[in-house]
Amino acid sequence: MGNLTTIALLSGGLDSATAAALAKESGHKVIGLSFNYGQRHRRELIAATNIAKHLELIEHQIINVNLAAWGGSSLTDMSQSLPDKGVVETTIPSTYVPGRNTVFIAIGLSLAEARNAQNVVLGINAMDYSGYPDCRPDYLEAFQNLANLSSKAGRLGEKINLWAPLIKWKKVKIIKEALRLNIPIESTWSCYSDMKSACGICDSCRIRDAALKEIGRSDLCSKK
Amino acid sequence: MGNLTTIALLSGGLDSATAAALAKESGHKVIGLSFNYGQRHRRELIAATNIAKHLELIEHQIINVNLAAWGGSSLTDMSQSLPDKGVVETTIPSTYVPGRNTVFIAIGLSLAEARNAQNVVLGINAMDYSGYPDCRPDYLEAFQNLANLSSKAGRLGEKINLWAPLIKWKKVKIIKEALRLNIPIESTWSCYSDMKSACGICDSCRIRDAALKEIGRSDLCSKK
Repeated sequence: MGNLTTIALLSGGLDSATAAALAKESGHKVIGLSFNYGQRHRRELIAATNIAKHLELIEHQIINVNLAAWGGSSLTDMSQSLPDKGVVETTIPSTYVPGRNTVFIAIGLSLAEARNAQNVVLGINAMDYSGYPDCRPDYLEAFQNLANLSSKAGRLGEKINLWAPLIKWKKVKIIKEALRLNIPIESTWSCYSDMKSACGICDSCRIRDAALKEIGRSDLCSKK
Repeated sequence: MGNLTTIALLSGGLDSATAAALAKESGHKVIGLSFNYGQRHRRELIAATNIAKHLELIEHQIINVNLAAWGGSSLTDMSQSLPDKGVVETTIPSTYVPGRNTVFIAIGLSLAEARNAQNVVLGINAMDYSGYPDCRPDYLEAFQNLANLSSKAGRLGEKINLWAPLIKWKKVKIIKEALRLNIPIESTWSCYSDMKSACGICDSCRIRDAALKEIGRSDLCSKK
């Protein structure tokens, strides 16, 4: 296992940090990859950089891909308001950035191929964000199939594995694993807002805070 | 058909210009999309802009996505030499940029979703560049399957169609179609080099020039 290389997509949030730490724990050489896609704030990228340092990743790439140029999401479009109902939405949320995960995973595969990496590890999970069409197991399966056909590695019989260890985990389990792996939860950034500290109101903050309270760690909540 | 919107990936080359013109001829509203991915020269983007103007596209987006940051191809890595054997390579060519088509199509799907477009039209063809793993029909099929699962549109039952009209055409047929569609062939840019005019030596120039000669239009060749 010691010779495996893994690309970890790092959003700056808790989930992707946990996924990267799991790859590290498995003995992989881990390369971080983050995206400046025109998100509302740079806090995500600062958090991603801090996590890459904390996990002592061998490399951390930050690439510009300005999906905000064509709008369509409340996460990149300042004229739309953020959801703050604190419940998991049953329709596709307004924070959905068109095709974001597909673009990010495609770029992850490009870096994996350039570095001869065997894995791309993703923090996506289908449980808490079922409203997102591109966080589901069948989506990931279809992408694996595409990856097998598209890459030089796939063609030569060495496949790049899309690895989503958290895909069926509930937030409570993710947080327990993050604590076990010594991830500095306070350094991660999951909030949708562009405030100086996490808002505690948006869906992302509320789901995270509810899980922290459930395991008796309300000291780590956005709003104490 | 008049109400259909199509995203056309424009590389600046002949093939993608022909694909875009076919969409236009079908009565679609066509939006161009080009990529500044760290290629050797800006000529491609200038050519893409000229083609977008010539075809009177309703919008033309140029997005930065610097795949050259991690190297791995002679098209983006200045330390590698370009192929000039003038034959179609049987192995994967050194000009292959890891995962480039996957990244470009993923970004095309993102724009399609943001603009409520029904199609993404691609100039890829499997005949002359069989060395590229991501220009083949099975690759495209796998991507269509992913697109159906990933997008908001797909989830709501309105699919985005990946359309590659040239995929089984030989270069001679593409050039005949381009001439029929009044594409200013001299404004397109297919050459791999970064010279002021097309080199006439690289594989891309040679394949194109051979096809032009075959139909008696050597006046349009790179080197007369």
